Amino acid sequence: MKVDPTYERNLEIHLHGPGPSDVPAAVLRAISAATIGHLDSEFIKIMDEAQAMLRMLYQTENRMTIPISGTGSSGMETLVANLINPQDKVIVVRNGVFGGRIADTVSRFGGEVIPIDLEWGTVVTPEQIRKAFSRNRCHALFLVHAETSTGAHQQHMREIGQIVHQNDALFLVDTVTSLGGTEVKIDEWGIDAAYSGTQKCLSVPPGLSPITLNEKAMQKLRARKARSWYFDLGMIEQYWNEGYQRKYHHTAPINMIYALHEALRLVLQEGLDARFQRHRKNAAALQAGLETLGFTYLVKKQNERLPMLHAVYLPDGLEEGKLRQNIRARYNIEIGGGLGEFSGKAWRIGLMGHSSTKDKVGRLLNCIGEELKKHGIIDDATIGFQTAQAIYQNSES
Amino acid sequence: MKVDPTYERNLEIHLHGPGPSDVPAAVLRAISAATIGHLDSEFIKIMDEAQAMLRMLYQTENRMTIPISGTGSSGMETLVANLINPQDKVIVVRNGVFGGRIADTVSRFGGEVIPIDLEWGTVVTPEQIRKAFSRNRCHALFLVHAETSTGAHQQHMREIGQIVHQNDALFLVDTVTSLGGTEVKIDEWGIDAAYSGTQKCLSVPPGLSPITLNEKAMQKLRARKARSWYFDLGMIEQYWNEGYQRKYHHTAPINMIYALHEALRLVLQEGLDARFQRHRKNAAALQAGLETLGFTYLVKKQNERLPMLHAVYLPDGLEEGKLRQNIRARYNIEIGGGLGEFSGKAWRIGLMGHSSTKDKVGRLLNCIGEELKKHGIIDDATIGFQTAQAIYQNSES
Repeated sequence: MKVDPTYERNLEIHLHGPGPSDVPAAVLRAISAATIGHLDSEFIKIMDEAQAMLRMLYQTENRMTIPISGTGSSGMETLVANLINPQDKVIVVRNGVFGGRIADTVSRFGGEVIPIDLEWGTVVTPEQIRKAFSRNRCHALFLVHAETSTGAHQQHMREIGQIVHQNDALFLVDTVTSLGGTEVKIDEWGIDAAYSGTQKCLSVPPGLSPITLNEKAMQKLRARKARSWYFDLGMIEQYWNEGYQRKYHHTAPINMIYALHEALRLVLQEGLDARFQRHRKNAAALQAGLETLGFTYLVKKQNERLPMLHAVYLPDGLEEGKLRQNIRARYNIEIGGGLGEFSGKAWRIGLMGHSSTKDKVGRLLNCIGEELKKHGIIDDATIGFQTAQAIYQNSES
Repeated sequence: MKVDPTYERNLEIHLHGPGPSDVPAAVLRAISAATIGHLDSEFIKIMDEAQAMLRMLYQTENRMTIPISGTGSSGMETLVANLINPQDKVIVVRNGVFGGRIADTVSRFGGEVIPIDLEWGTVVTPEQIRKAFSRNRCHALFLVHAETSTGAHQQHMREIGQIVHQNDALFLVDTVTSLGGTEVKIDEWGIDAAYSGTQKCLSVPPGLSPITLNEKAMQKLRARKARSWYFDLGMIEQYWNEGYQRKYHHTAPINMIYALHEALRLVLQEGLDARFQRHRKNAAALQAGLETLGFTYLVKKQNERLPMLHAVYLPDGLEEGKLRQNIRARYNIEIGGGLGEFSGKAWRIGLMGHSSTKDKVGRLLNCIGEELKKHGIIDDATIGFQTAQAIYQNSES
């Protein structure tokens, strides 16, 4: 069997799908530093620093702020396995694939799902949540802050947090696609526990799920045995958190944590405000360009659109899969297809973390423009690009 | 907050603990290749190749042979969540920390544990297993092939497999520390499902758990819904295996899979026989050296000792923790402490994968010898080293 090393292959692709995003050279350099032991004092220093930086990003004082040793969905399962008891009633907002995934997981762990089913591409209102609580004595509300399948950006987080706490329930949030690309204010919004992924706006390779839980959530889980060994936070906190004996639970994914550490360093170096502003600016330019090219957004309301994920319908007469493959083959650009009920019907274009730059927006619009011109949809391949440039000029003047 | 990049730190440590082991430069080069999409055709090629190579290493035809997106223990939890039904009776051999961990996990998922409790440092006999089956109608036998807490190497695997199948049960095996360092013959031994880790004899950073399941095990799990979403193999196989539509389940840990791919390439390049022979040869030399220095093995029977993990009591009058710290500080060598009931009483010295070389055995024995001389345990710091050299000369002549 003849197998070539991965590092001799052409893997230089511009990542504009729904994650992973382009990984900065410094992060790839960090991930390839020599592996050391998971109980080594040098490594513990790196863990402590990563935790401290992660708290800044999550805007929280929560001691329990760590990366779970799995991809984004492992963070979701961690919350469910530790916080949901059998027969617990859990309100789950289902407005896309990831809300549905949460409901599925809660069921598997014996919880009773009280769904709020919404049209995909919309978000839940405080009123709808109040109503759900008024009908049921519920233990938790679970929702997705940034729905990667639709591009919908949940609003009213602070108000929702208040409603949840008035009902003496836990507020659990999926921040997989939002963290590092837009505000996630754990403490201010009253979020009891949240999880994220590394391959979206943090621009780390996939493989870790940063989570954060407040003391109320930790107390609830410490009182019982998790219905998972691998994700048992009561044991994991004894390895991760200062003040415990750094008791071995499982061998931490050392090099992935190097990568996360470096990415967090870069995020804080840029500054949260500047970073979120960059995401917004590039999003506005991309949106203007895409609309000029004839794309329309799944999410109808402007203020409910995510800056880092643009889920759009194509102009009529185009086969999305074919066009996407051409763009990948001709320009080395990855764009995501629709997910769930949008499969085959839409694109998901990511401007996440390191993939959100003016140059990359320009390249995207030019390449998409070229293809649209070939299909006779537009006459001038550069009109999307030009519209975007005008937006940049306005915002800079 | 001032944080230095990981790549500017001194992380060049010789890893001789119970894993992680030293990672070859080629693997670190592979892990830092540019991240690409988890549905990209280039990545699917890498997945397919990694699977094919993993089958060779596991000596199996099992189609379902993939890395789970978590560390070694995640493979254990995957097997339990998918194969153990509530109230299933599962015989678990408890002869060390990892057998105990399996029993804990089986219980959490509702299985009934039928323990075979053994003195730590010993292994189970076919007779003991026959007896356990004769007393109970059991659904599975779970044992650890290479017990990392004691250094015990389970024997009689083929015979045990036959007993399990005569009783119409599943044979489930932890090969975390054995895979890549000694024979693991899945098909010949009749193992229905097994899991491993990457940071032991494969010398990849921690973060993946290679697993393999035969069709019988897959049929059992496809008939029900796993009590885990993240580890649901029925869904995961639709992403990993040819013939399915590469349906997205969770975002694969791309760069970790690059690293595994490269390490498997190196393993097969070396050849399985040559690799296992290398591990045995270096183990014999280290053992001779350690015994000369006054160390004694936890595992009493020579043929039940692992070549890649040497769990030893220190000569009298030494404080193990202090000495280990000195060796780490003075020579940049990591040695593992005892685990479980051997905590504070023993060392675990690893010669795993890339860490198993003649030079490294020599350095280990010289450095330990230096420290023992300082403590007045021996007069000549080099006697361990010399004994090992004699073993090498004999084996080479």
